[in-house]
Amino acid sequence: MNILALDTAGKTAAVAVLQDGALRYASFCDTGLTHSETLLPLIDTALHSCGLTLDQIDLYGVTAGPGSFTGLRIGLAMVKGLALPRNTPCAGVSTLEALAWGRVMEGTVIGALDARRGQVYWAAFDGATHARLTPDTAAPVEAMENFLKSCKKPVLFVGDGAALCYNKFGEIPGVLPCPQPLRGLRGAGVALAAQLCWEEGRCTSAAELLPDYHRLSQAERERAAREAQQRGDS
Amino acid sequence: MNILALDTAGKTAAVAVLQDGALRYASFCDTGLTHSETLLPLIDTALHSCGLTLDQIDLYGVTAGPGSFTGLRIGLAMVKGLALPRNTPCAGVSTLEALAWGRVMEGTVIGALDARRGQVYWAAFDGATHARLTPDTAAPVEAMENFLKSCKKPVLFVGDGAALCYNKFGEIPGVLPCPQPLRGLRGAGVALAAQLCWEEGRCTSAAELLPDYHRLSQAERERAAREAQQRGDS
Repeated sequence: MNILALDTAGKTAAVAVLQDGALRYASFCDTGLTHSETLLPLIDTALHSCGLTLDQIDLYGVTAGPGSFTGLRIGLAMVKGLALPRNTPCAGVSTLEALAWGRVMEGTVIGALDARRGQVYWAAFDGATHARLTPDTAAPVEAMENFLKSCKKPVLFVGDGAALCYNKFGEIPGVLPCPQPLRGLRGAGVALAAQLCWEEGRCTSAAELLPDYHRLSQAERERAAREAQQRGDS
Repeated sequence: MNILALDTAGKTAAVAVLQDGALRYASFCDTGLTHSETLLPLIDTALHSCGLTLDQIDLYGVTAGPGSFTGLRIGLAMVKGLALPRNTPCAGVSTLEALAWGRVMEGTVIGALDARRGQVYWAAFDGATHARLTPDTAAPVEAMENFLKSCKKPVLFVGDGAALCYNKFGEIPGVLPCPQPLRGLRGAGVALAAQLCWEEGRCTSAAELLPDYHRLSQAERERAAREAQQRGDS
């Protein structure tokens, strides 16, 4: 079984190819270029390196959220385009779950993405089994404190919100520092999370693949605020 | 500071670019092709993705052993060739140390490479600080047992000898299983180990960069056996 997995949920991009459970190729890119510039070359290089064509891909894995709204749309649109012609199954996986699946350790892995406006998207996972411990949430960094005090140690923050969390909670005993080069989202993590979706029968068609934004877009928030103000004015 | 790091010590190949401590690009390849086919395209794609030329590389990192004799020579010869014209400093790092630097966890990370003939190359590192706990050694898998019983748990085996070790010692309490896609040598690990060499003033010139095979080659072993036999016969 050949899995092509990709991530464009944040500023970084990642691609991986899993063949019968083994990692054949993986790439990660954080070069400041847009996903629209980097993603197709990353995919093309991955397939070419593995000697595979799109006809031979049995499952597409993609981070479906949380993350940058534009980033998520680029990744999902790409997978929809690649999967549709051959009705290839798709696994839209939680970005935070994919972050956790990129590590193995005893204790708790917390996937954290910078959600701007003082918030992070975060969720916690058992570091060894990758079992989910909390749902994907968008919340102020501070809101994580109670969970951190009671969860199994050690704790490792990963993702582009990891530094934000570590700066806030790094002094809690059992919170591990993570070197920057090991914090990013790995294509292998997306592929492993997608493989689990497949094993549990949670895959979808390309048409059913949808983003999971976890909060309203800026335009929607501004419209809601405008409408609330107008109701208040009337 | 721009670090270009590469690994061809085993069957897999990996490349990474670190820019001022941040991971910009990483790729990993385990496609059955030879390093002579994959390595230059991997390096070329990495540099091109980062918008860098060889003139802008301040340090080369490369796994210098243990590993496949041919694999090590390919990686070292490549770095010698790239570094010589500009006198760029080089960091030849232990393959096992680079494996450990690709992870963060509390406990012990053991880098293990299949050395054939029932042996593994192995060394243990603190999972959080990456401090070395044992020297790089070539030994039968069984010889690790005493260390495993007394070392800080949990223990994670990584590298192409990880399965061999886990199959032997997986029932010892505190030995974690590691999914295959997370076992491989990461370019980021080579880059972090090379960065440490730089910080500690242990870098060399291209000419001084040498492999560290950790045991005699097959030809040398056979000659020694032949000579011993001749001495016995005479």
